[in-house]
Amino acid sequence: MPSFIPPTILDCDESAMAHALALAELAIGLSEPNPRVGCVITDAKGLVLGVGHTQAAGQAHAEVMALRDLQARGHSALGATAYVTLEPCSHHGRTPPCCDALIAAGLARVVAAATDPNPLVAGQGLARLAGAGIAVEHGLLAGPARELNIGFFSRMLRQRPFVRMKLAASLDGRTALENGVSQWITGPEARLDGHRWRNRAGAVLTGIGTVREDDPRLDVRGIDTYLQPLRVIVDARLETSPQARILKPPGKVLLACGQVDLDGPAARALRDSGAEIVGLPGPAGKVDLPALLLHLGQRGINELHVEAGHKLNASLLRERLVDELLLYLAPKLIGPGRDLAALDALQSLDGVQSWDWQAVDRVGSDLRLRLRPIGGWH
Amino acid sequence: MPSFIPPTILDCDESAMAHALALAELAIGLSEPNPRVGCVITDAKGLVLGVGHTQAAGQAHAEVMALRDLQARGHSALGATAYVTLEPCSHHGRTPPCCDALIAAGLARVVAAATDPNPLVAGQGLARLAGAGIAVEHGLLAGPARELNIGFFSRMLRQRPFVRMKLAASLDGRTALENGVSQWITGPEARLDGHRWRNRAGAVLTGIGTVREDDPRLDVRGIDTYLQPLRVIVDARLETSPQARILKPPGKVLLACGQVDLDGPAARALRDSGAEIVGLPGPAGKVDLPALLLHLGQRGINELHVEAGHKLNASLLRERLVDELLLYLAPKLIGPGRDLAALDALQSLDGVQSWDWQAVDRVGSDLRLRLRPIGGWH
Repeated sequence: MPSFIPPTILDCDESAMAHALALAELAIGLSEPNPRVGCVITDAKGLVLGVGHTQAAGQAHAEVMALRDLQARGHSALGATAYVTLEPCSHHGRTPPCCDALIAAGLARVVAAATDPNPLVAGQGLARLAGAGIAVEHGLLAGPARELNIGFFSRMLRQRPFVRMKLAASLDGRTALENGVSQWITGPEARLDGHRWRNRAGAVLTGIGTVREDDPRLDVRGIDTYLQPLRVIVDARLETSPQARILKPPGKVLLACGQVDLDGPAARALRDSGAEIVGLPGPAGKVDLPALLLHLGQRGINELHVEAGHKLNASLLRERLVDELLLYLAPKLIGPGRDLAALDALQSLDGVQSWDWQAVDRVGSDLRLRLRPIGGWH
Repeated sequence: MPSFIPPTILDCDESAMAHALALAELAIGLSEPNPRVGCVITDAKGLVLGVGHTQAAGQAHAEVMALRDLQARGHSALGATAYVTLEPCSHHGRTPPCCDALIAAGLARVVAAATDPNPLVAGQGLARLAGAGIAVEHGLLAGPARELNIGFFSRMLRQRPFVRMKLAASLDGRTALENGVSQWITGPEARLDGHRWRNRAGAVLTGIGTVREDDPRLDVRGIDTYLQPLRVIVDARLETSPQARILKPPGKVLLACGQVDLDGPAARALRDSGAEIVGLPGPAGKVDLPALLLHLGQRGINELHVEAGHKLNASLLRERLVDELLLYLAPKLIGPGRDLAALDALQSLDGVQSWDWQAVDRVGSDLRLRLRPIGGWH
C-alpha cells in the first residue's frame, strides 16, 4: 500500500525500505523461530545513521540492533526516521518490546512495511508509537516483507508452517531412472540452490522410504548457516535404522510415527541415536500429517521444506497440505523412471488441483519453477 | 556482426532493419517455400520511401515490393538505402534477380541482415551490388533474420526441414490421463499459440496412432493464413481410414508408408480421398524417417511441425531428428497417464541427450518451453 506514503518523499522512503529488506534477508538461517526483520535509521536528509537485523532467538531484534549501531557510530536518534520491515513488537517476549526502545531513543517517524500477523502484536506496536507522538506509516514494500516471512505469517495465522515441496525432475517428469539412478538429473547449481531453500526452512521433512533407499543427510551444506533445520522423518512404524546418516549431527532429528510402542526397543535405539520421537497416529496405520504440521507449528517451525519420495509427496498433495512447489526441471527426456508423486489415476481433469506460477528462473542448466495452489493460502 | 556498421549511424540502421524484420514476419504462412524477407527503403535522413515483404511463391520478392511501394508513393530510389533482411538474390528463379531491380533503381547503399544460405546465391548478390557501385554492408540483426528463416536455412544447408516437436504436458510429464482424456491439459491460449506455430510450418507431421485415436484435423485454425501446411502421416502399413478427418480440406495430405503395395485397394481408396502416397520403407517394416525428411526437403518444406503420439515422438527423438522441442507445460500434477515419448529405459544418465533452453514464456496459464539439442544444428 505505497499510497500511504506522501509521494514527494516516496523514492527516498522506498530505497531506505529496500535496504532494510536486504538486511532482513541476512536473518535467514539465524533468527528462527523469530521473523526476519531489517531496520534502517536515517536522518531527515536520508543519511543512514544505523542499521540492523534480527539476531538469533532470545537476542536483539532489528530495531535494537540498529539503535546500537547508531550509538556505536556516535549518532543521535533524536528526530530520525526508522524504516522497519515488520511492525515493531509491543509485548514482552524473550526480549523487551522494541517500541519502547524506539520511543526512548527519540525517533520522530517510523515507517513499517508489513504489520505484524501475531494477534498479540497486530497494530498495537504502531498504535503505541503513535501514542508517544511518533509519526507512523505502514504498507511500503509490505508484499516483499510478508513474502520473506511467509512461514512466520503462516504459523501466526494458521498455526502451521508454510509447506514448500522441493522436486527435481526431467522434462518428462522423472525423478530417477527405472533402476533408481537419480544422480545428475539436475546440475550442481540447482543442487546448491536447493541447499539455499533448505536453509530458509526451520525443518526439512522426508519419509522412511527415502531414508531407506537413499540414506540422505538432508542437512544444509555448501552454505554458511548459523542454524541447521530440524530434520523430520515420517516413519509410521519406526523403521529408521539407528545407523541412518540423517541421525548424525549437525542438527536435530524428529521421528513422527503412528501407533507404535514409544518405549519399545526400536524407539529406545533411535532415541539412543539422538532422535526425538513423537506419536501422531492417523488413519490406516499412517502418520496424521495435518497433526504433524500443527505439532511443527507449536515447535516454532515457520517454513517446512519437503524432500521426499513419490509416496509421501502424493500423501501431502492428496491432503492439499502443500503451499508451494519448488520444481527444478532438467532439460532432458529420460523415458521410463520414477514419478514425482504416486498420485491416484484420475478419471477426468475436472477436479485436478491447479497451480499458479510464482516464479520461473534459470538456475545453471536447469529451470526452477515455483508454483502455489490457486485459491490456496499465501 | 553489427560491428560492420559505422557506429555513428548504428541506431538509425538498426531501427530500419528492425522494421524490415517486422515486415518479414508478415510473410509467415504466405511465402513458402521462399524465405521470409522484409525490405525498407529510406532516404539519407532515414525517411521511409517504401516497404515490402516476400509474397507467395512465384510472386514478387521483398525488394521488388518495396520498390513498387516507393514508386506508388511518388518517390525516387536514387541515392536511397535499402535495408533487407536477407541478401538479395542474383539468380533467375521463378522471378528475375532482385539485385538487378535494386541496381536499376539507382540505390546508393544496401544493408543486408543475413547472407543467403543458398549455395546458388551466397555472397553473389552482395558482390553483384558492389560491382555496380552500390555501398554494401551485411550482418546487422543477422541472428533474428536467420532465426525467422531457420527452416529455410536448414533446407539449404542440410537438405531437410527444421524439425520442431510440439508437446503439451502436465508438470509430471503427462500428455493425457490413463483413460486417454487429454482435453484441457493446457489452456485455450496455449492451444491457439500452437496453431501459430503450425502456421509457421510448411508441413505438420503425425503418426497413424494419433490419427486412429484422436482423428485430428491438424489444419491451422483460429488464425488467418494464406497457406495451409501439408499434413503428413507416418503410416507404415497404410492403415489410415479414407474417412479420417485429416484427409478433408483445407490443405493437402501426404501419407508416408513402408513396404506396401502402392497400387493395392488401401492405397487406391486413400488416393481417392485426396491423399498422396509415398513409399519410404525403412528397417523393421517402418517408415525411413531420415528419408522422409529429405523427401520433405525436396518438396520445399522449411519447417516441419510434429504433433504426434508417444511412439512417433520416441522414434524421432531416438534417431536425433528433432531440432526443437516446443513444450507447453500446464501447472497441474495429474498422476498416472500417457507419457510424452515412449523412450526405452536408460541404465545410466551418461548418454542422455541434453537440451538447451531457447526460450521460456508464459502463455495464458501455461508455460511455453522451447529447447534445442546441445551440439545440435541451429
